[in-house]
Amino acid sequence: MYSALTTHIAKFVSLDETETEILRENLVFLSVKKKENLLEAGQTCHYQYFIVKGLCRNFIINEKGNEQTTQFGIENWWLSDYLSFHNDRPSGFYIQAVENSELIAIEKKAMETLLAKVPKLERYFRLVLQKAFGASQIRIKYLFTQSAEERYRHFSTSFPEFVQRVPQYMLASYLDFSPEFMSKIRAGKV
Amino acid sequence: MYSALTTHIAKFVSLDETETEILRENLVFLSVKKKENLLEAGQTCHYQYFIVKGLCRNFIINEKGNEQTTQFGIENWWLSDYLSFHNDRPSGFYIQAVENSELIAIEKKAMETLLAKVPKLERYFRLVLQKAFGASQIRIKYLFTQSAEERYRHFSTSFPEFVQRVPQYMLASYLDFSPEFMSKIRAGKV
Repeated sequence: MYSALTTHIAKFVSLDETETEILRENLVFLSVKKKENLLEAGQTCHYQYFIVKGLCRNFIINEKGNEQTTQFGIENWWLSDYLSFHNDRPSGFYIQAVENSELIAIEKKAMETLLAKVPKLERYFRLVLQKAFGASQIRIKYLFTQSAEERYRHFSTSFPEFVQRVPQYMLASYLDFSPEFMSKIRAGKV
Repeated sequence: MYSALTTHIAKFVSLDETETEILRENLVFLSVKKKENLLEAGQTCHYQYFIVKGLCRNFIINEKGNEQTTQFGIENWWLSDYLSFHNDRPSGFYIQAVENSELIAIEKKAMETLLAKVPKLERYFRLVLQKAFGASQIRIKYLFTQSAEERYRHFSTSFPEFVQRVPQYMLASYLDFSPEFMSKIRAGKV
């Protein structure tokens, strides 16, 4: 049940049996249905979620009342609203299962307990955040520099699996163009 | 010389004298002139920079050949291209001093040496990254949801010091609107 996470951790740091046991004691396993919200705007985000199986996303509701996807996560990715989590303040984000998903959640206090007992996991979470933040820097770069078509071509080449698994309207909002433009691109009309 | 950083670290973890000494041995102090580049697109980013005094930014050059600021950093902030740093791959970013600045740089191998000897600094860097990534999530949210005017009002209320210190054209590119629109806003014409 927890092997996807322990395998992922083993890429960064090596835990012995006792440490792995302490890790497991501080995790919660969740099965969530498609479209189920793990977090809603206005709530404080108390968890970081590791995706064992499935696909989830962070989204916001914009001023027109439309959902705007800001981040996707698939297997072996973590999702959270890190500022809400860090500051214990209400979030402006939703976190939602896009597919039926299996997740491992770690609650903030449990994480502190875990890290006090197994400090080498600080390294794991640092490296995960370093990669995620780096990816987010690149995302801002692409939003500023690529045309809608370039963003789609780049994304579909880099992450072909996503394009198959994610509803078109969600991908369109993530790449910041209209569903109509997405339909044209997919029909080869752009 | 290193007291700004040790004070910042002390907010997150407590280092003894020996640990502080090891920290210092692995840092480099830099004075950079306004407009000096610490990193240029095409180079691999081998450093993370802590700003002791001054103001720096990450920027890209877009397809029109214009500079587009993606991130600012002032005193007590870290700047880097984290994905280039993490993966040892060429960066698409520039890192540049906006004001004459005093920085503390940590090189990737020195950082690994330091963290091996003082593992509790893993926690410091994890928490710094958690806040920075959280701030980046919020930035993407604002880029998607706020009008140019709202972004300016929000930014100037949240970070009044920036608006005083940063050239208008840089702030305009950071907030993703034209310098002309910025002039109108500041003249109260919008």
